[in-house]
Amino acid sequence: MNQDYIQSHPWSIIEEGFDKERIKSSESLFSMGNGVMGQRANFEESYSGPTFQGSYIGGVYYPDKTRVGWWKNGYPEYFAKVINAPNWIGIDVSIDGEPLDLATCTNIKNFKRELNMKEGWYRRNFVATTPNNVEIEVVATRFLSLSHDEVGAIQFEITPMNTDAEIVFKPYIDAGITNEDSNWDDKFWNTTNIESNKNRAFIESHTMKTHFNVCTFMQAHLVYGDTIKETPDSLNKEELAIGFEFSQKIKKGEKVSLIKYGGYAVDRNHDANKLMEAANSVLDEVSSLGFDKLLEEQKKAWAAIWEMSDITIKGDVKAQQGIRFNIFQLNQTYTGTDSRLNIGPKGFTGEKYGGSTYWDTEAYCLPFYMATKNQEVARKLLKYRYNHLDKAIENAEKLGFTKGAALYPMVTMNGEECHNEWEITFEEIHRNGAIAYAIYNYTRYTQDYSYVPEMGLEVLIGIARFWQQRVNWSTHRNKYVMLGVTGPNEYENNVHNNWYTNYIAKWCLEYTLEQLNYVQQEYPNDYKRVLEKTQLSNDETGLWIKVAAHMYLPYSEEHGVYLQQDGFLDKDLVRVAKLNKKERPINQHWSWDRILRSPYIKQADTLQGFYFFEDHFTEQELEKHFDFYEPFTVHESSLSPCVHAIQAAKLGRMEQAYTFYLRTSRLDLDDYNKEVEEGLHITSMAGTWMSIVEGFGGMRVRDGKLCFSPKIPEQWDRYSFKINFRDRILKVTVAQSGTIITMNEGESLEILVNGEPIILDQQ
Amino acid sequence: MNQDYIQSHPWSIIEEGFDKERIKSSESLFSMGNGVMGQRANFEESYSGPTFQGSYIGGVYYPDKTRVGWWKNGYPEYFAKVINAPNWIGIDVSIDGEPLDLATCTNIKNFKRELNMKEGWYRRNFVATTPNNVEIEVVATRFLSLSHDEVGAIQFEITPMNTDAEIVFKPYIDAGITNEDSNWDDKFWNTTNIESNKNRAFIESHTMKTHFNVCTFMQAHLVYGDTIKETPDSLNKEELAIGFEFSQKIKKGEKVSLIKYGGYAVDRNHDANKLMEAANSVLDEVSSLGFDKLLEEQKKAWAAIWEMSDITIKGDVKAQQGIRFNIFQLNQTYTGTDSRLNIGPKGFTGEKYGGSTYWDTEAYCLPFYMATKNQEVARKLLKYRYNHLDKAIENAEKLGFTKGAALYPMVTMNGEECHNEWEITFEEIHRNGAIAYAIYNYTRYTQDYSYVPEMGLEVLIGIARFWQQRVNWSTHRNKYVMLGVTGPNEYENNVHNNWYTNYIAKWCLEYTLEQLNYVQQEYPNDYKRVLEKTQLSNDETGLWIKVAAHMYLPYSEEHGVYLQQDGFLDKDLVRVAKLNKKERPINQHWSWDRILRSPYIKQADTLQGFYFFEDHFTEQELEKHFDFYEPFTVHESSLSPCVHAIQAAKLGRMEQAYTFYLRTSRLDLDDYNKEVEEGLHITSMAGTWMSIVEGFGGMRVRDGKLCFSPKIPEQWDRYSFKINFRDRILKVTVAQSGTIITMNEGESLEILVNGEPIILDQQ
Repeated sequence: MNQDYIQSHPWSIIEEGFDKERIKSSESLFSMGNGVMGQRANFEESYSGPTFQGSYIGGVYYPDKTRVGWWKNGYPEYFAKVINAPNWIGIDVSIDGEPLDLATCTNIKNFKRELNMKEGWYRRNFVATTPNNVEIEVVATRFLSLSHDEVGAIQFEITPMNTDAEIVFKPYIDAGITNEDSNWDDKFWNTTNIESNKNRAFIESHTMKTHFNVCTFMQAHLVYGDTIKETPDSLNKEELAIGFEFSQKIKKGEKVSLIKYGGYAVDRNHDANKLMEAANSVLDEVSSLGFDKLLEEQKKAWAAIWEMSDITIKGDVKAQQGIRFNIFQLNQTYTGTDSRLNIGPKGFTGEKYGGSTYWDTEAYCLPFYMATKNQEVARKLLKYRYNHLDKAIENAEKLGFTKGAALYPMVTMNGEECHNEWEITFEEIHRNGAIAYAIYNYTRYTQDYSYVPEMGLEVLIGIARFWQQRVNWSTHRNKYVMLGVTGPNEYENNVHNNWYTNYIAKWCLEYTLEQLNYVQQEYPNDYKRVLEKTQLSNDETGLWIKVAAHMYLPYSEEHGVYLQQDGFLDKDLVRVAKLNKKERPINQHWSWDRILRSPYIKQADTLQGFYFFEDHFTEQELEKHFDFYEPFTVHESSLSPCVHAIQAAKLGRMEQAYTFYLRTSRLDLDDYNKEVEEGLHITSMAGTWMSIVEGFGGMRVRDGKLCFSPKIPEQWDRYSFKINFRDRILKVTVAQSGTIITMNEGESLEILVNGEPIILDQQ
Repeated sequence: MNQDYIQSHPWSIIEEGFDKERIKSSESLFSMGNGVMGQRANFEESYSGPTFQGSYIGGVYYPDKTRVGWWKNGYPEYFAKVINAPNWIGIDVSIDGEPLDLATCTNIKNFKRELNMKEGWYRRNFVATTPNNVEIEVVATRFLSLSHDEVGAIQFEITPMNTDAEIVFKPYIDAGITNEDSNWDDKFWNTTNIESNKNRAFIESHTMKTHFNVCTFMQAHLVYGDTIKETPDSLNKEELAIGFEFSQKIKKGEKVSLIKYGGYAVDRNHDANKLMEAANSVLDEVSSLGFDKLLEEQKKAWAAIWEMSDITIKGDVKAQQGIRFNIFQLNQTYTGTDSRLNIGPKGFTGEKYGGSTYWDTEAYCLPFYMATKNQEVARKLLKYRYNHLDKAIENAEKLGFTKGAALYPMVTMNGEECHNEWEITFEEIHRNGAIAYAIYNYTRYTQDYSYVPEMGLEVLIGIARFWQQRVNWSTHRNKYVMLGVTGPNEYENNVHNNWYTNYIAKWCLEYTLEQLNYVQQEYPNDYKRVLEKTQLSNDETGLWIKVAAHMYLPYSEEHGVYLQQDGFLDKDLVRVAKLNKKERPINQHWSWDRILRSPYIKQADTLQGFYFFEDHFTEQELEKHFDFYEPFTVHESSLSPCVHAIQAAKLGRMEQAYTFYLRTSRLDLDDYNKEVEEGLHITSMAGTWMSIVEGFGGMRVRDGKLCFSPKIPEQWDRYSFKINFRDRILKVTVAQSGTIITMNEGESLEILVNGEPIILDQQ
């Protein structure tokens, strides 16, 4: 049974009723972010029950000393972690001297959380009786501003219901925080200055080793009827924290509010010596606006995002809620304004995975950002990898590769590899292919070729060099083989000739050769510069041609399918449907050796290749491979159902496509993988978007032309989405009765719908 | 270039000259042990240069919290470590108030270490000038008593050479020690009592978690001419250490000595509440004997060991020194008196590897102990595994096996697995085969079948059950296959159908079925008891028959050899000889993925099978496999050269066999693997013994008969060894001119020499 406590609603995520068992899960689901910072939905007031505290600042990381049983040559020295940042949301509360703590209250009623995705705010309310028998009503509203992205705001309202009471608010900021996943109990932060000024407080800290400087700040005031109290009654300054006290006697049934603004000024954006100045400046701005106007701005900013990226689904509220939750989270995580940031797999919702950048960005997230933002955002994501090319070359050198071969990292913050499991770090090298594929995908979609001569060609050369050195000639097979790899399906390690990896390697070589030719003809100056810089020789490109032409691709004549890897047919091929449900997910129940020798597939592997290179195969071939592999797929990676949804839709299996869609879109809401407490699966959310746009909408770019072959699940009345295609804004609406495609902006465009050409003009 | 500072000598290990760079290496090479405790050759006096301090007590371990990057289901919770025990050898010295420290002395002359293997003592002498310009001569002699195995003795002599001087000896015991390899800086010891009585001192400690109770003790007195000072001048008691001061004014050219006895009383042998009583009792015994008589006993005890286990080699002093060093270390590590102890791969010489018991014991050490001790010692080693059967069944259960399947641990102290690398812990399962093979080997050699019905049959059933569950039917191959294993060659991980593993699994099933039949016929009561206990059914044994009959064994028609594993021929088959010497050993220079996809073999794998199951293959087959695999073998496991020496000798390739012999026998003395600082490779030393006895001597047991086919390297004049075969003591002497085999004890025996029957009678 999956989790099902989240209420269905087209625009909001809603929880009703207080259940201690759900606290950590809801802290993930109701997380907030504005692209540059984010936080789990921890309570403002203290809570003594189990909770997972987390505030995060984009791009601020710590190279945690790595933890590994047995060191292997080539392992990186550290594991980069997006670290828990000083807490600015805290507001301790006491009622007639008794601390407010939901874990000790009784008679908790009307507990409700709402994450309003349309407007970008989160509210929690409840009625509860404190241990000293005061019944109170609380309404706490919070948001992270998009318009002032260094700041968030909280309105914390309390009404004593059964008696007059003295309410004390103690808003504070606290740098005494740790990561749950710290490997060696290292201190991540060093706090250098704590000070206050009237109702503002500041903590200046820097991260150890990486020396990011951050000023955490807050400002608070109390509102009671017409009274506005801006001067705190007292100040509490501790070694790593600072807070105020605002005390107020309240009449029964009357409401008192604390307004708090807080956030971070970071030296990525300001002079490290002037962070407090920057903090004061943003506090000046937002406090002169006030909570309500800031919230108005928030609603407008989110309206603008939804205007372009919303997908509407009529007739299926769970599906509607799912897709909006996904789009909302993607926009909370990465807004595309800063090419130094990227899309962490858990966004700002948890600590797991560390680092910020995986191949997820290129393989899953790029299409979403290409289509729902302008092309500059996608280009920034590509540039991010170009900026890391030197580090990728160093990564490859650490593994013994030479002459500028580049291996992009599995996990990184600054381009250096920072993950160490040999079977992943050293062997899950298909990631290199996704980096090249993203370049292809970007130019295909945007028709902006400029990235290739300026930057991409160097990236491609580094990647091609890696593949050529990574294969070896097998005399036995008379082919180039690739030994010892882990494919996208991480339930197989150190396999030989993973079809997907071999195929994408071959493609990378061919694509690079093609781009070399094209740049030579069209951009001779860039060509000359790149050749000089990379010292590329004809011997090398000659080898690339040879390797690409003679790459071994495992194939079973018996089954008429490419084999996921050598030896796949030796497995005990029992389908997933026959597994004992109690043993699922297998990664929580089976030992690793048992998983490895089983045929079970964590996520699309061969089928990932069929997704990327769809045009290389017939629909019959796709069907054969889908029917062969999907029955062994356990979809225990969040990245799995979306690719299968797209392919099922292509094969016209709409019922199956719909099931996959629900699984990908509600993965976290319904906690399919039983781990939502640890945070959300952000990058796979882009896959949900693909499920609709590429899956149901059948959107493709073929021969430079935009194509659709729309389908619709029978559970839906209609759905619609918008895309930005080469500066044209198209709206696609698919109903059971047919499809309407309109263009709101841009020049006339010929597209194909179900293979038929259609000319779109501005409406 | 290998290390070559150890002087050649037939009976002693000698280092001459002081070199700070060699300290750690010599601390390993001059280690001492008496089967129940041991220590590295650390200086008695303090030394401020780099050193690796180590004292160890057999069977006293700590379950260190494990360190692993990414947890896998089935991993053990802890990693058992033979822990650094309180130091009892310490004697700080000061000369006219200046502490003696070789790192600060000048003009160090005549520095010499000698480990006298014949008599079992270690001596260090030097002349040096202290910072306050006193030239002193020091002679420090130390041994760990075999006759009183809880105690060691030190005689520390100093002579001031250029002036009168006041010498202060500060003998102490110190429980403030740590392990270099502690994972989490945990405290391993808790000290509960420190006290002294005249010139005796005691520290009572227990290990955290495992609660081993140990009393570390010492007694000291000073000797100067006729003066014997038994009462210390003062006492220093610290939180975790206690020591005395003996001060004496010495005339130039006269000698003063400190005699110190020290050691451990352990609750494995005494009531935990009476450890100090036990310590006093052993101190009474040894102090009444005195240093000289205790040393006389030591010489006698070692003479008795050498009487049976010595191997003499005439004409090659390096070879002679090598084999004696190996035999000496084996006897220092395990004497066979206690079935609760086993043979750790580093003995008492270092921390690395942890645990005490590996498959090394069964695969490499058993033959040595069978032939040089009485058969009870070997039987104790087998019993040790029987005692751990329940834990082996638990180990298998943790990995999802059922119905009493047993998986013996890769590393253990008490039967529980305590190693966690998935590719080893979960996959290097061939170790189970070695446990079964040892039973076969023991009964074959001793003709003592009683172990099988009493204990061994249950072990075999557990192992057979494991193999049957571990394979799966491959429809594709129409055979049983074994996926995801690591063979003895740990430079391949997670391979399919490792020939050695599949072969020994098949053999285990057949052997178990055979023993079941035999026990049924010959020991019907035992049979009934075991069947009831194990609930073995005909269905199960039916499956065993099927699996054994249809086990897949990878074979190359092209090369006419069994393949180490599926896909071996896909590798880039460049021979070791062509590797850049600067990149050797590859495990110190190559990243793990590069090692894995290379063809290089760490230690005998396919050839290990040809060693165990020699009689199943023709000599032509052996030759073919040797010629195929040896050129890819880097011998980076200490367990590799011995097996190759035996096979090269069998093939008549004496020059190669001799090279392997030197490599195995002088692995540590010459530091082939550049890691001797970490400790010695104890278990492989039994392989050196096998190289001579089974390799050059050609000793086998075939069809119940002892056989020899003696050969001799041309570098040697002659060699001889003794073996205990079924209570007969045979001496085998092989000269260039021929072989003489005599029997010193026991009944008449027919043996085969070069295939010819010979009757031996007592001389």
